[in-house]
Amino acid sequence: MDRAEFQAIEGYMLQQMADMAHDAQHVYRVFYTALDIAGWETEARRDIVAAAALLHDVGRAAQARDPALCHAQVGAEMAYRFLTRELGWDEGRAGHVRACVLTHRFRSDRPPESLEAKIVFDADKLDVTGAMGIARTLLYAGQTDEPLYRLDGEGRVLVDADSPSSFLQEYNFKLRGIAGGLYTRRARELARGRQKAADDFYGALLAEVTGSLERGRAALDGLLRETGDF
Amino acid sequence: MDRAEFQAIEGYMLQQMADMAHDAQHVYRVFYTALDIAGWETEARRDIVAAAALLHDVGRAAQARDPALCHAQVGAEMAYRFLTRELGWDEGRAGHVRACVLTHRFRSDRPPESLEAKIVFDADKLDVTGAMGIARTLLYAGQTDEPLYRLDGEGRVLVDADSPSSFLQEYNFKLRGIAGGLYTRRARELARGRQKAADDFYGALLAEVTGSLERGRAALDGLLRETGDF
Repeated sequence: MDRAEFQAIEGYMLQQMADMAHDAQHVYRVFYTALDIAGWETEARRDIVAAAALLHDVGRAAQARDPALCHAQVGAEMAYRFLTRELGWDEGRAGHVRACVLTHRFRSDRPPESLEAKIVFDADKLDVTGAMGIARTLLYAGQTDEPLYRLDGEGRVLVDADSPSSFLQEYNFKLRGIAGGLYTRRARELARGRQKAADDFYGALLAEVTGSLERGRAALDGLLRETGDF
Repeated sequence: MDRAEFQAIEGYMLQQMADMAHDAQHVYRVFYTALDIAGWETEARRDIVAAAALLHDVGRAAQARDPALCHAQVGAEMAYRFLTRELGWDEGRAGHVRACVLTHRFRSDRPPESLEAKIVFDADKLDVTGAMGIARTLLYAGQTDEPLYRLDGEGRVLVDADSPSSFLQEYNFKLRGIAGGLYTRRARELARGRQKAADDFYGALLAEVTGSLERGRAALDGLLRETGDF
């Protein structure tokens, strides 16, 4: 991949994500992380990894318009068409990129198969680990009006597997385990390095919420008792 | 304040915030924290603190409908009317609560004056410190489409005082300094205990972003150089 080709793919990606500035930042992080991982996998075809990472989310706008669509499926076809028609890539290389884009989204019936597809998958999943995973999950909770936590009738924070969803519950039962599903050694190493920041944040938020509740309820009981209501 | 009175004030608060479930969670945290602080300030009138903390954000819905309104001003009048008309509080006590609600929002020309007003102010500000401050700021960034960070032309993260706004820039120049503006000793103690979680998260997110960018840009240079484009 030469600079002109890189810039053409980057330009197409930016054009497709013109209305989604934050998603473009995510794409650059995935792109850079994918190149990092590929540097540790000497067999990896880096032009395939680079193109697929840049193009992995180009189907996002279509899915935003019609939630019934899967952005990985739509994006895979868009990437294939762009590479063959605009850049003259042959069916083999463009088809390889198409497969990487199709399998980047976690689906148990559609796992990544080639080394390049595994690298793109891992780079995308790494962006929901660590402090970045916490930050992106909270941004999304803000967009979708998801609460930080839910309490039971006794005021305990609900973070079990079958609890109703909230940020704390989702971290505990989804985000925390993502590192276990990564394919490449370098990605697992990066995930381990990022895990502590996320676990620490989760623990601190839970402690702040429960500490404030427990001290405050004791103080409230004291206040009401003082006025002879007990 | 007896239980019936507490429940009447709580009920009015929940009714006013019926469409803002997350804001009601914030109100309970501020209420419990205010009672905690009041427990360390033996002079504080705890019924005033309790009523003002529960009612401090009842003007939120009015401000959401008309952003030209200030929720502290609107809420102060709502609290006064409710306490005098529905609970028969005299003008002195209800006026004291009104003043606490009016000054809970940071305005340099409208600082909290009484001990009770300072306690409510501090309890509200504590909810933007620590992991909770990070979480609430990120939820808000999601709602208002604020980016996590902004980069300059060389790909450096912009977190200076005069940088365009982003989550990282706002933490660095606003959230980080909040503990310095608190009035009560107990609130400053609570803020110190929560500061590390927030600073650690900020540091981890910044390190993840810059690390990924630096390694990825080096890898991209390597890829393009390999194909003879340099």
